[in-house]
Amino acid sequence: MQIGIIGAGAIGLLYASYLYNYFSVTIYTRTIEQADEINKHGLILQKESKQRISFVKSMPISKWNGTEDVTIIAVKQYQLNAVVDKIKQLMIVPKNLLFLQNGMGHLKLLEKIPAENIFVGSVEHGAMKVNMNTVCHNGEGVTKVAVFKGDPTALHVLATALPSDFLMNEHDDFYEMLLHKLIINAIINPLTAILQVENGQLLENPYYYKAARNLFAEVAAIVNLKHAEQHFEQICHICRQTAANRSSMLKDVEANRKTEIDAILGFLLEEATKNGKKAPLIETLYDLVKGKENGWREC
Amino acid sequence: MQIGIIGAGAIGLLYASYLYNYFSVTIYTRTIEQADEINKHGLILQKESKQRISFVKSMPISKWNGTEDVTIIAVKQYQLNAVVDKIKQLMIVPKNLLFLQNGMGHLKLLEKIPAENIFVGSVEHGAMKVNMNTVCHNGEGVTKVAVFKGDPTALHVLATALPSDFLMNEHDDFYEMLLHKLIINAIINPLTAILQVENGQLLENPYYYKAARNLFAEVAAIVNLKHAEQHFEQICHICRQTAANRSSMLKDVEANRKTEIDAILGFLLEEATKNGKKAPLIETLYDLVKGKENGWREC
Repeated sequence: MQIGIIGAGAIGLLYASYLYNYFSVTIYTRTIEQADEINKHGLILQKESKQRISFVKSMPISKWNGTEDVTIIAVKQYQLNAVVDKIKQLMIVPKNLLFLQNGMGHLKLLEKIPAENIFVGSVEHGAMKVNMNTVCHNGEGVTKVAVFKGDPTALHVLATALPSDFLMNEHDDFYEMLLHKLIINAIINPLTAILQVENGQLLENPYYYKAARNLFAEVAAIVNLKHAEQHFEQICHICRQTAANRSSMLKDVEANRKTEIDAILGFLLEEATKNGKKAPLIETLYDLVKGKENGWREC
Repeated sequence: MQIGIIGAGAIGLLYASYLYNYFSVTIYTRTIEQADEINKHGLILQKESKQRISFVKSMPISKWNGTEDVTIIAVKQYQLNAVVDKIKQLMIVPKNLLFLQNGMGHLKLLEKIPAENIFVGSVEHGAMKVNMNTVCHNGEGVTKVAVFKGDPTALHVLATALPSDFLMNEHDDFYEMLLHKLIINAIINPLTAILQVENGQLLENPYYYKAARNLFAEVAAIVNLKHAEQHFEQICHICRQTAANRSSMLKDVEANRKTEIDAILGFLLEEATKNGKKAPLIETLYDLVKGKENGWREC
Protein backbone atom coordinates (compact mmCIF):
# COMPACT_ATOMS: atom_id res chain seq x y z
CA MET A 1 0.00 0.00 0.00
CA GLN A 2 1.30 3.47 -0.89
CA ILE A 3 1.15 6.15 1.80
CA GLY A 4 1.57 9.90 1.35
CA ILE A 5 2.24 12.13 4.32
CA ILE A 6 1.61 15.87 3.95
CA GLY A 7 3.53 17.97 6.46
CA ALA A 8 7.01 17.28 7.75
CA GLY A 9 6.79 18.69 11.26
CA ALA A 10 7.21 16.48 14.35
CA ILE A 11 4.10 14.37 13.71
CA GLY A 12 4.64 13.97 9.95
CA LEU A 13 8.26 12.89 10.45
CA LEU A 14 7.27 10.51 13.26
CA TYR A 15 4.63 8.84 11.09
CA ALA A 16 6.98 8.56 8.13
CA SER A 17 9.60 6.85 10.32
CA TYR A 18 7.23 4.25 11.71
CA LEU A 19 5.25 3.58 8.54
CA TYR A 20 8.38 3.19 6.40
CA ASN A 21 8.86 -0.43 7.59
CA TYR A 22 5.41 -1.51 6.45
CA PHE A 23 4.45 0.63 3.47
CA SER A 24 5.83 2.61 0.57
CA VAL A 25 5.96 6.10 2.08
CA THR A 26 6.41 9.54 0.52
CA ILE A 27 6.59 12.60 2.77
CA TYR A 28 5.63 15.98 1.28
CA THR A 29 7.42 19.01 2.67
CA ARG A 30 6.74 22.75 2.57
CA THR A 31 10.28 23.55 1.40
CA ILE A 32 12.48 21.96 -1.28
CA GLU A 33 15.41 22.18 1.17
CA GLN A 34 13.75 19.82 3.63
CA ALA A 35 12.85 17.28 0.91
CA ASP A 36 16.45 17.38 -0.36
CA GLU A 37 17.79 16.88 3.16
CA ILE A 38 15.59 13.84 3.78
CA ASN A 39 16.36 12.30 0.37
CA LYS A 40 20.08 12.85 0.84
CA HIS A 41 20.61 11.87 4.49
CA GLY A 42 17.55 9.80 5.31
CA LEU A 43 15.05 10.42 8.09
CA ILE A 44 16.41 9.87 11.58
CA LEU A 45 14.17 8.69 14.42
CA GLN A 46 15.55 9.13 17.95
CA LYS A 47 13.99 7.24 20.85
CA GLU A 48 15.59 7.10 24.26
CA SER A 49 19.27 6.48 23.52
CA LYS A 50 18.73 4.72 20.17
CA GLN A 51 18.34 6.04 16.67
CA ARG A 52 17.14 4.52 13.41
CA ILE A 53 17.45 5.80 9.89
CA SER A 54 14.77 5.38 7.21
CA PHE A 55 15.28 6.21 3.56
CA VAL A 56 11.84 7.65 3.07
CA LYS A 57 11.15 9.35 -0.25
CA SER A 58 10.46 13.07 0.06
CA MET A 59 9.09 15.74 -2.28
CA PRO A 60 7.86 19.30 -1.96
CA ILE A 61 4.10 19.51 -1.50
CA SER A 62 3.68 20.98 -5.00
CA LYS A 63 4.45 17.51 -6.39
CA TRP A 64 1.65 15.76 -4.55
CA ASN A 65 -0.98 14.44 -6.99
CA GLY A 66 -3.21 12.48 -4.63
CA THR A 67 -2.59 9.05 -6.15
CA GLU A 68 -1.43 7.24 -2.98
CA ASP A 69 -3.79 4.72 -1.41
CA VAL A 70 -3.86 6.69 1.82
CA THR A 71 -2.70 10.28 2.43
CA ILE A 72 -2.09 11.37 6.00
CA ILE A 73 -2.47 15.11 6.53
CA ALA A 74 -0.19 16.06 9.41
CA VAL A 75 -0.12 19.87 9.23
CA LYS A 76 -1.34 22.19 12.00
CA GLN A 77 -5.01 23.08 11.95
CA TYR A 78 -4.24 26.66 10.95
CA GLN A 79 -2.28 25.42 7.89
CA LEU A 80 -5.15 23.24 6.72
CA ASN A 81 -6.83 25.74 4.42
CA ALA A 82 -3.90 25.64 2.02
CA VAL A 83 -3.99 21.81 1.94
CA VAL A 84 -7.74 21.77 1.34
CA ASP A 85 -7.30 24.15 -1.60
CA LYS A 86 -4.66 21.80 -2.97
CA ILE A 87 -6.99 18.78 -2.62
CA LYS A 88 -9.73 20.60 -4.49
CA GLN A 89 -7.33 21.36 -7.35
CA LEU A 90 -6.22 17.72 -7.84
CA MET A 91 -6.97 16.08 -11.18
CA ILE A 92 -8.42 13.06 -9.36
CA VAL A 93 -10.56 12.43 -6.28
CA PRO A 94 -8.20 11.00 -3.68
CA LYS A 95 -9.13 7.62 -2.21
CA ASN A 96 -8.39 7.82 1.51
CA LEU A 97 -7.44 10.87 3.58
CA LEU A 98 -6.51 10.72 7.27
CA PHE A 99 -6.51 14.06 9.13
CA LEU A 100 -4.43 14.29 12.32
CA GLN A 101 -5.21 17.84 13.54
CA ASN A 102 -5.82 18.78 17.14
CA GLY A 103 -9.12 20.26 18.21
CA MET A 104 -12.33 20.16 16.22
CA GLY A 105 -12.12 23.39 14.30
CA HIS A 106 -11.24 21.47 11.14
CA LEU A 107 -14.42 19.33 11.01
CA LYS A 108 -16.39 21.96 9.12
CA LEU A 109 -13.61 22.06 6.50
CA LEU A 110 -13.66 18.27 6.02
CA GLU A 111 -17.30 18.31 5.01
CA LYS A 112 -16.36 20.18 1.83
CA ILE A 113 -13.48 17.96 0.76
CA PRO A 114 -13.87 15.73 -2.31
CA ALA A 115 -12.43 12.34 -1.28
CA GLU A 116 -13.82 8.81 -1.31
CA ASN A 117 -13.14 8.15 2.35
CA ILE A 118 -12.14 10.58 5.09
CA PHE A 119 -10.71 9.53 8.46
CA VAL A 120 -9.73 11.59 11.48
CA GLY A 121 -7.16 10.81 14.15
CA SER A 122 -6.07 12.09 17.51
CA VAL A 123 -2.36 11.66 18.19
CA GLU A 124 -1.25 10.97 21.74
CA HIS A 125 2.47 10.62 21.07
CA GLY A 126 5.02 13.10 22.27
CA ALA A 127 7.38 14.09 19.45
CA MET A 128 9.81 16.88 18.79
CA LYS A 129 11.34 17.89 15.47
CA VAL A 130 15.07 18.16 16.14
CA ASN A 131 16.05 19.39 12.68
CA MET A 132 14.85 19.06 9.07
CA ASN A 133 15.39 15.28 8.93
CA THR A 134 15.41 14.24 12.60
CA VAL A 135 12.51 13.60 14.96
CA CYS A 136 12.64 12.58 18.60
CA HIS A 137 9.89 10.26 19.86
CA ASN A 138 9.87 11.34 23.49
CA GLY A 139 6.49 10.11 24.63
CA GLU A 140 5.02 6.79 23.54
CA GLY A 141 1.26 6.87 23.11
CA VAL A 142 -1.36 5.70 20.64
CA THR A 143 -3.22 7.24 17.75
CA LYS A 144 -6.97 7.07 18.00
CA VAL A 145 -8.65 6.93 14.60
CA ALA A 146 -12.21 6.90 13.31
CA VAL A 147 -14.12 7.20 10.06
CA PHE A 148 -15.44 10.68 9.33
CA LYS A 149 -17.04 9.66 6.04
CA GLY A 150 -17.02 6.58 3.77
CA ASP A 151 -15.57 3.09 4.01
CA PRO A 152 -13.16 2.01 6.79
CA THR A 153 -11.20 -0.64 4.83
CA ALA A 154 -8.01 1.32 4.20
CA LEU A 155 -7.95 2.62 7.77
CA HIS A 156 -8.28 -0.93 9.00
CA VAL A 157 -5.36 -2.13 6.83
CA LEU A 158 -3.23 0.71 8.18
CA ALA A 159 -4.17 0.07 11.81
CA THR A 160 -3.61 -3.68 11.54
CA ALA A 161 -0.13 -3.35 10.09
CA LEU A 162 1.34 -1.14 12.79
CA PRO A 163 3.59 -2.47 15.58
CA SER A 164 2.77 -2.48 19.28
CA ASP A 165 4.91 0.58 20.00
CA PHE A 166 2.99 2.63 17.46
CA LEU A 167 -0.59 1.47 17.85
CA MET A 168 -3.54 2.87 15.98
CA ASN A 169 -6.83 2.22 17.81
CA GLU A 170 -10.01 2.32 15.78
CA HIS A 171 -13.05 4.06 17.30
CA ASP A 172 -16.67 4.09 16.20
CA ASP A 173 -17.64 7.66 16.90
CA PHE A 174 -15.27 10.28 15.49
CA TYR A 175 -17.09 13.11 17.27
CA GLU A 176 -16.84 11.57 20.74
CA MET A 177 -13.24 10.61 20.08
CA LEU A 178 -12.13 14.10 19.06
CA LEU A 179 -14.25 15.73 21.73
CA HIS A 180 -12.49 13.75 24.41
CA LYS A 181 -9.10 15.10 23.37
CA LEU A 182 -10.49 18.58 22.77
CA ILE A 183 -11.75 18.85 26.34
CA ILE A 184 -8.37 17.85 27.74
CA ASN A 185 -6.64 20.39 25.53
CA ALA A 186 -9.22 23.08 26.33
CA ILE A 187 -8.34 22.95 30.03
CA ILE A 188 -4.62 22.22 30.14
CA ASN A 189 -3.38 24.22 27.16
CA PRO A 190 -4.81 27.71 27.69
CA LEU A 191 -4.26 27.80 31.46
CA THR A 192 -0.65 26.60 31.28
CA ALA A 193 0.05 28.98 28.37
CA ILE A 194 -1.39 32.02 30.15
CA LEU A 195 0.14 31.22 33.53
CA GLN A 196 3.40 29.96 32.01
CA VAL A 197 3.51 26.92 34.28
CA GLU A 198 4.08 23.18 33.85
CA ASN A 199 1.03 20.89 33.63
CA GLY A 200 1.43 19.63 37.21
CA GLN A 201 0.83 23.12 38.63
CA LEU A 202 -2.84 22.88 37.65
CA LEU A 203 -3.20 20.17 40.29
CA GLU A 204 -0.67 21.28 42.87
CA ASN A 205 -1.69 24.91 43.11
CA PRO A 206 -5.18 24.94 44.70
CA TYR A 207 -6.13 28.24 43.06
CA TYR A 208 -5.13 27.05 39.60
CA TYR A 209 -7.02 23.82 40.28
CA LYS A 210 -10.14 25.83 41.10
CA ALA A 211 -9.76 27.85 37.90
CA ALA A 212 -9.38 24.59 35.95
CA ARG A 213 -12.55 23.19 37.53
CA ASN A 214 -14.56 26.32 36.68
CA LEU A 215 -13.29 26.32 33.11
CA PHE A 216 -14.11 22.62 32.82
CA ALA A 217 -17.67 23.22 34.07
CA GLU A 218 -18.18 25.83 31.36
CA VAL A 219 -16.75 23.55 28.66
CA ALA A 220 -18.84 20.58 29.83
CA ALA A 221 -22.02 22.65 29.70
CA ILE A 222 -21.31 23.82 26.15
CA VAL A 223 -20.79 20.33 24.71
CA ASN A 224 -23.47 18.70 26.92
CA LEU A 225 -20.83 16.37 28.29
CA LYS A 226 -21.99 13.10 29.80
CA HIS A 227 -20.04 11.56 32.70
CA ALA A 228 -18.37 14.92 33.27
CA GLU A 229 -16.71 13.87 36.52
CA GLN A 230 -14.91 10.99 34.78
CA HIS A 231 -13.62 13.37 32.14
CA PHE A 232 -12.31 15.72 34.79
CA GLU A 233 -10.63 12.83 36.58
CA GLN A 234 -8.84 11.99 33.38
CA ILE A 235 -7.62 15.55 32.94
CA CYS A 236 -6.21 15.35 36.46
CA HIS A 237 -4.61 12.02 35.61
CA ILE A 238 -2.90 13.54 32.57
CA CYS A 239 -1.69 16.54 34.58
CA ARG A 240 -0.19 14.11 37.09
CA GLN A 241 1.44 11.92 34.41
CA THR A 242 2.88 14.95 32.60
CA ALA A 243 3.48 17.08 35.70
CA ALA A 244 6.91 18.33 34.64
CA ASN A 245 5.95 18.95 30.99
CA ARG A 246 5.24 22.25 29.34
CA SER A 247 2.11 22.01 27.18
CA SER A 248 2.37 22.47 23.43
CA MET A 249 0.50 25.76 23.69
CA LEU A 250 2.89 27.06 26.34
CA LYS A 251 5.81 26.12 24.10
CA ASP A 252 4.16 27.89 21.16
CA VAL A 253 3.60 31.04 23.23
CA GLU A 254 7.15 31.00 24.54
CA ALA A 255 8.53 30.59 21.01
CA ASN A 256 6.27 33.37 19.68
CA ARG A 257 4.57 30.86 17.38
CA LYS A 258 0.93 30.74 16.42
CA THR A 259 -0.98 28.44 18.80
CA GLU A 260 -3.84 26.02 18.17
CA ILE A 261 -6.22 28.11 20.27
CA ASP A 262 -8.64 28.60 17.35
CA ALA A 263 -9.02 24.84 16.92
CA ILE A 264 -9.63 24.38 20.63
CA LEU A 265 -11.30 27.28 22.49
CA GLY A 266 -12.24 28.90 19.17
CA PHE A 267 -14.28 25.79 18.28
CA LEU A 268 -15.98 25.81 21.70
CA LEU A 269 -16.83 29.50 21.34
CA GLU A 270 -18.50 28.78 18.01
CA GLU A 271 -20.43 25.93 19.59
CA ALA A 272 -21.55 28.23 22.41
CA THR A 273 -22.74 30.88 19.95
CA LYS A 274 -24.51 28.27 17.83
CA ASN A 275 -26.43 26.99 20.86
CA GLY A 276 -27.06 30.39 22.45
CA LYS A 277 -24.96 29.57 25.51
CA LYS A 278 -22.75 31.94 27.48
CA ALA A 279 -19.06 31.17 27.76
CA PRO A 280 -17.40 34.07 29.60
CA LEU A 281 -14.33 32.13 30.77
CA ILE A 282 -13.68 30.46 27.43
CA GLU A 283 -14.08 33.81 25.69
CA THR A 284 -11.64 35.63 27.96
CA LEU A 285 -9.05 32.84 28.07
CA TYR A 286 -9.28 32.71 24.27
CA ASP A 287 -8.63 36.46 24.14
CA LEU A 288 -5.69 36.22 26.54
CA VAL A 289 -4.01 33.47 24.49
CA LYS A 290 -4.71 35.27 21.20
CA GLY A 291 -3.18 38.38 22.72
CA LYS A 292 -0.06 36.50 23.74
CA GLU A 293 0.22 34.82 20.37
CA ASN A 294 3.12 36.37 18.61
CA GLY A 295 2.50 39.72 20.34
CA TRP A 296 -1.03 39.71 18.82
CA ARG A 297 0.07 39.94 15.20
CA GLU A 298 -1.68 37.36 13.03
CA CYS A 299 0.67 35.03 11.17
CA MET B 1 -1.17 69.51 65.17
CA GLN B 2 0.52 66.20 65.93
CA ILE B 3 0.43 63.55 63.24
CA GLY B 4 1.23 59.85 63.63
CA ILE B 5 1.91 57.70 60.60
CA ILE B 6 1.67 53.94 60.98
CA GLY B 7 3.57 52.05 58.31
CA ALA B 8 6.91 53.04 56.82
CA GLY B 9 6.56 51.64 53.32
CA ALA B 10 6.58 53.89 50.24
CA ILE B 11 3.33 55.70 51.10
CA GLY B 12 4.10 56.13 54.81
CA LEU B 13 7.55 57.56 54.10
CA LEU B 14 6.15 59.83 51.38
CA TYR B 15 3.52 61.25 53.73
CA ALA B 16 6.03 61.72 56.55
CA SER B 17 8.33 63.67 54.20
CA TYR B 18 5.63 66.04 52.98
CA LEU B 19 3.81 66.51 56.30
CA TYR B 20 7.02 67.21 58.22
CA ASN B 21 7.10 70.84 57.03
CA TYR B 22 3.65 71.59 58.41
CA PHE B 23 3.08 69.35 61.43
CA SER B 24 4.84 67.50 64.21
CA VAL B 25 5.18 64.05 62.65
CA THR B 26 6.06 60.67 64.16
CA ILE B 27 6.37 57.65 61.87
CA TYR B 28 5.83 54.18 63.38
CA THR B 29 7.80 51.33 61.84
CA ARG B 30 7.48 47.55 61.95
CA THR B 31 11.15 47.08 62.88
CA ILE B 32 13.38 48.84 65.41
CA GLU B 33 16.15 48.92 62.78
CA GLN B 34 14.10 51.12 60.47
CA ALA B 35 13.16 53.53 63.26
CA ASP B 36 16.84 53.78 64.30
CA GLU B 37 17.88 54.42 60.70
CA ILE B 38 15.34 57.23 60.26
CA ASN B 39 16.23 58.83 63.63
CA LYS B 40 19.95 58.64 62.91
CA HIS B 41 20.12 59.65 59.24
CA GLY B 42 16.83 61.45 58.66
CA LEU B 43 14.21 60.63 56.04
CA ILE B 44 15.28 61.32 52.47
CA LEU B 45 12.77 62.29 49.79
CA GLN B 46 13.94 62.01 46.19
CA LYS B 47 12.05 63.76 43.43
CA GLU B 48 13.38 64.08 39.92
CA SER B 49 17.05 65.03 40.41
CA LYS B 50 16.56 66.72 43.79
CA GLN B 51 16.52 65.36 47.30
CA ARG B 52 15.41 66.72 50.64
CA ILE B 53 16.06 65.47 54.13
CA SER B 54 13.52 65.60 56.99
CA PHE B 55 14.36 64.78 60.57
CA VAL B 56 11.10 63.03 61.26
CA LYS B 57 10.79 61.28 64.63
CA SER B 58 10.45 57.52 64.31
CA MET B 59 9.49 54.71 66.72
CA PRO B 60 8.58 51.07 66.41
CA ILE B 61 4.82 50.49 66.20
CA SER B 62 4.78 48.99 69.71
CA LYS B 63 5.32 52.51 71.09
CA TRP B 64 2.23 53.99 69.46
CA ASN B 65 -0.33 55.06 72.07
CA GLY B 66 -2.89 56.80 69.87
CA THR B 67 -2.48 60.28 71.38
CA GLU B 68 -1.69 62.19 68.17
CA ASP B 69 -4.40 64.49 66.78
CA VAL B 70 -4.48 62.53 63.53
CA THR B 71 -3.05 59.09 62.83
CA ILE B 72 -2.57 58.08 59.22
CA ILE B 73 -2.64 54.32 58.69
CA ALA B 74 -0.47 53.61 55.65
CA VAL B 75 -0.03 49.83 55.80
CA LYS B 76 -1.21 47.43 53.08
CA GLN B 77 -4.77 46.20 53.37
CA TYR B 78 -3.61 42.70 54.29
CA GLN B 79 -1.58 44.10 57.22
CA LEU B 80 -4.55 45.99 58.59
CA ASN B 81 -5.84 43.34 60.97
CA ALA B 82 -2.77 43.70 63.18
CA VAL B 83 -3.21 47.49 63.29
CA VAL B 84 -6.90 47.19 64.14
CA ASP B 85 -6.04 44.85 67.02
CA LYS B 86 -3.55 47.43 68.21
CA ILE B 87 -6.18 50.22 68.07
CA LYS B 88 -8.61 48.12 70.09
CA GLN B 89 -5.97 47.59 72.79
CA LEU B 90 -5.17 51.31 73.21
CA MET B 91 -5.83 52.86 76.64
CA ILE B 92 -7.66 55.73 74.93
CA VAL B 93 -10.08 56.18 72.03
CA PRO B 94 -8.04 57.83 69.25
CA LYS B 95 -9.36 61.10 67.91
CA ASN B 96 -8.86 61.00 64.14
CA LEU B 97 -7.76 58.07 61.98
CA LEU B 98 -7.10 58.32 58.26
CA PHE B 99 -6.90 55.01 56.38
CA LEU B 100 -5.04 54.99 53.05
CA GLN B 101 -5.57 51.40 51.86
CA ASN B 102 -6.32 50.43 48.28
CA GLY B 103 -9.53 48.64 47.42
CA MET B 104 -12.61 48.43 49.63
CA GLY B 105 -11.97 45.20 51.50
CA HIS B 106 -11.08 47.21 54.60
CA LEU B 107 -14.41 49.01 54.95
CA LYS B 108 -16.00 46.22 56.95
CA LEU B 109 -13.05 46.36 59.38
CA LEU B 110 -13.42 50.12 59.87
CA GLU B 111 -16.96 49.74 61.14
CA LYS B 112 -15.64 47.96 64.20
CA ILE B 113 -12.92 50.44 65.11
CA PRO B 114 -13.33 52.59 68.22
CA ALA B 115 -12.28 56.12 67.17
CA GLU B 116 -13.97 59.50 67.30
CA ASN B 117 -13.59 60.24 63.61
CA ILE B 118 -12.56 57.93 60.80
CA PHE B 119 -11.47 59.10 57.36
CA VAL B 120 -10.49 57.17 54.26
CA GLY B 121 -8.21 58.21 51.46
CA SER B 122 -7.22 57.06 48.02
CA VAL B 123 -3.62 57.83 47.10
CA GLU B 124 -2.81 58.64 43.49
CA HIS B 125 0.88 59.33 43.93
CA GLY B 126 3.58 57.11 42.54
CA ALA B 127 6.19 56.34 45.17
CA MET B 128 8.92 53.76 45.64
CA LYS B 129 10.74 52.88 48.84
CA VAL B 130 14.44 52.98 47.93
CA ASN B 131 15.74 51.80 51.30
CA MET B 132 14.74 52.02 54.98
CA ASN B 133 14.95 55.82 55.12
CA THR B 134 14.63 56.89 51.47
CA VAL B 135 11.55 57.26 49.32
CA CYS B 136 11.35 58.30 45.68
CA HIS B 137 8.32 60.35 44.63
CA ASN B 138 8.15 59.30 41.01
CA GLY B 139 4.60 60.23 40.12
CA GLU B 140 2.91 63.40 41.32
CA GLY B 141 -0.78 62.95 42.00
CA VAL B 142 -3.33 63.87 44.64
CA THR B 143 -4.85 62.14 47.63
CA LYS B 144 -8.62 61.96 47.61
CA VAL B 145 -10.07 61.91 51.11
CA ALA B 146 -13.52 61.61 52.64
CA VAL B 147 -15.18 61.13 56.01
CA PHE B 148 -16.13 57.54 56.79
CA LYS B 149 -17.59 58.42 60.19
CA GLY B 150 -17.71 61.46 62.48
CA ASP B 151 -16.62 65.07 62.16
CA PRO B 152 -14.49 66.36 59.24
CA THR B 153 -12.67 69.18 61.10
CA ALA B 154 -9.28 67.53 61.51
CA LEU B 155 -9.33 66.24 57.93
CA HIS B 156 -10.08 69.77 56.76
CA VAL B 157 -7.14 71.20 58.75
CA LEU B 158 -4.85 68.58 57.23
CA ALA B 159 -6.08 69.15 53.68
CA THR B 160 -5.87 72.93 53.94
CA ALA B 161 -2.27 72.95 55.17
CA LEU B 162 -0.79 70.88 52.36
CA PRO B 163 1.13 72.42 49.45
CA SER B 164 0.08 72.38 45.79
CA ASP B 165 2.45 69.55 44.92
CA PHE B 166 0.89 67.31 47.56
CA LEU B 167 -2.80 68.13 47.40
CA MET B 168 -5.47 66.44 49.45
CA ASN B 169 -8.91 66.80 47.84
CA GLU B 170 -11.94 66.38 50.08
CA HIS B 171 -14.87 64.35 48.73
CA ASP B 172 -18.40 63.99 50.06
CA ASP B 173 -19.09 60.34 49.40
CA PHE B 174 -16.41 57.95 50.63
CA TYR B 175 -18.06 54.97 48.94
CA GLU B 176 -18.18 56.54 45.48
CA MET B 177 -14.65 57.84 45.91
CA LEU B 178 -13.15 54.46 46.81
CA LEU B 179 -15.30 52.63 44.28
CA HIS B 180 -13.92 54.80 41.51
CA LYS B 181 -10.34 53.76 42.32
CA LEU B 182 -11.36 50.16 42.97
CA ILE B 183 -12.82 49.78 39.49
CA ILE B 184 -9.67 51.10 37.87
CA ASN B 185 -7.54 48.73 39.95
CA ALA B 186 -9.89 45.81 39.30
CA ILE B 187 -9.29 46.02 35.56
CA ILE B 188 -5.67 47.11 35.20
CA ASN B 189 -4.03 45.23 38.08
CA PRO B 190 -5.16 41.61 37.63
CA LEU B 191 -4.86 41.59 33.83
CA THR B 192 -1.38 43.12 33.77
CA ALA B 193 -0.26 40.82 36.63
CA ILE B 194 -1.52 37.65 34.92
CA LEU B 195 -0.29 38.60 31.46
CA GLN B 196 2.92 40.18 32.77
CA VAL B 197 2.58 43.20 30.49
CA GLU B 198 2.81 46.98 30.90
CA ASN B 199 -0.40 48.96 31.33
CA GLY B 200 -0.37 50.25 27.76
CA GLN B 201 -0.73 46.72 26.35
CA LEU B 202 -4.34 46.60 27.58
CA LEU B 203 -5.12 49.26 24.98
CA GLU B 204 -2.68 48.39 22.23
CA ASN B 205 -3.36 44.67 22.06
CA PRO B 206 -6.92 44.30 20.69
CA TYR B 207 -7.43 40.92 22.38
CA TYR B 208 -6.33 42.23 25.78
CA TYR B 209 -8.56 45.26 25.23
CA LYS B 210 -11.51 42.95 24.60
CA ALA B 211 -10.73 40.99 27.77
CA ALA B 212 -10.53 44.27 29.72
CA ARG B 213 -13.94 45.35 28.35
CA ASN B 214 -15.56 42.05 29.31
CA LEU B 215 -14.08 42.18 32.79
CA PHE B 216 -15.23 45.77 33.14
CA ALA B 217 -18.78 44.83 32.14
CA GLU B 218 -18.87 42.20 34.86
CA VAL B 219 -17.48 44.61 37.48
CA ALA B 220 -19.90 47.36 36.46
CA ALA B 221 -22.87 44.99 36.79
CA ILE B 222 -21.82 43.92 40.28
CA VAL B 223 -21.54 47.43 41.69
CA ASN B 224 -24.50 48.79 39.67
CA LEU B 225 -22.20 51.37 38.16
CA LYS B 226 -23.76 54.51 36.75
CA HIS B 227 -22.19 56.22 33.73
CA ALA B 228 -20.22 53.04 33.03
CA GLU B 229 -18.89 54.24 29.69
CA GLN B 230 -17.28 57.29 31.32
CA HIS B 231 -15.58 55.04 33.84
CA PHE B 232 -14.23 52.80 31.11
CA GLU B 233 -12.97 55.85 29.24
CA GLN B 234 -11.04 56.86 32.32
CA ILE B 235 -9.46 53.43 32.64
CA CYS B 236 -8.32 53.76 29.03
CA HIS B 237 -7.01 57.24 29.78
CA ILE B 238 -4.95 55.90 32.70
CA CYS B 239 -3.59 53.03 30.59
CA ARG B 240 -2.53 55.59 28.01
CA GLN B 241 -0.94 57.93 30.59
CA THR B 242 0.93 55.05 32.27
CA ALA B 243 1.51 52.98 29.13
CA ALA B 244 5.11 52.07 29.95
CA ASN B 245 4.46 51.37 33.66
CA ARG B 246 4.20 48.02 35.35
CA SER B 247 1.21 47.97 37.70
CA SER B 248 1.75 47.53 41.44
CA MET B 249 0.19 44.07 41.27
CA LEU B 250 2.50 43.00 38.47
CA LYS B 251 5.46 44.23 40.51
CA ASP B 252 4.20 42.32 43.54
CA VAL B 253 3.80 39.11 41.52
CA GLU B 254 7.24 39.50 39.96
CA ALA B 255 8.80 40.04 43.38
CA ASN B 256 6.90 37.06 44.85
CA ARG B 257 5.14 39.38 47.27
CA LYS B 258 1.57 39.17 48.48
CA THR B 259 -0.70 41.26 46.25
CA GLU B 260 -3.73 43.41 47.07
CA ILE B 261 -6.05 41.10 45.13
CA ASP B 262 -8.22 40.38 48.19
CA ALA B 263 -8.92 44.08 48.68
CA ILE B 264 -9.80 44.48 45.01
CA LEU B 265 -11.30 41.44 43.25
CA GLY B 266 -11.87 39.74 46.62
CA PHE B 267 -14.13 42.63 47.65
CA LEU B 268 -16.04 42.44 44.35
CA LEU B 269 -16.51 38.69 44.75
CA GLU B 270 -18.03 39.25 48.19
CA GLU B 271 -20.32 41.91 46.75
CA ALA B 272 -21.39 39.50 44.00
CA THR B 273 -22.16 36.75 46.51
CA LYS B 274 -24.05 39.19 48.76
CA ASN B 275 -26.25 40.27 45.86
CA GLY B 276 -26.66 36.81 44.32
CA LYS B 277 -24.85 37.82 41.13
CA LYS B 278 -22.56 35.68 39.01
CA ALA B 279 -18.98 36.80 38.49
CA PRO B 280 -17.16 34.07 36.52
CA LEU B 281 -14.40 36.30 35.17
CA ILE B 282 -13.69 38.02 38.47
CA GLU B 283 -13.63 34.66 40.22
CA THR B 284 -11.19 33.09 37.78
CA LEU B 285 -8.91 36.11 37.53
CA TYR B 286 -8.89 36.23 41.33
CA ASP B 287 -7.86 32.55 41.40
CA LEU B 288 -5.13 33.07 38.82
CA VAL B 289 -3.60 35.98 40.75
CA LYS B 290 -3.89 34.13 44.08
CA GLY B 291 -2.18 31.17 42.45
CA LYS B 292 0.67 33.34 41.23
CA GLU B 293 1.02 35.04 44.59
CA ASN B 294 4.17 33.73 46.13
CA GLY B 295 3.74 30.37 44.42
CA TRP B 296 0.33 30.08 46.17
CA ARG B 297 1.67 29.97 49.74
CA GLU B 298 -0.12 32.42 51.99
CA CYS B 299 2.14 34.97 53.69
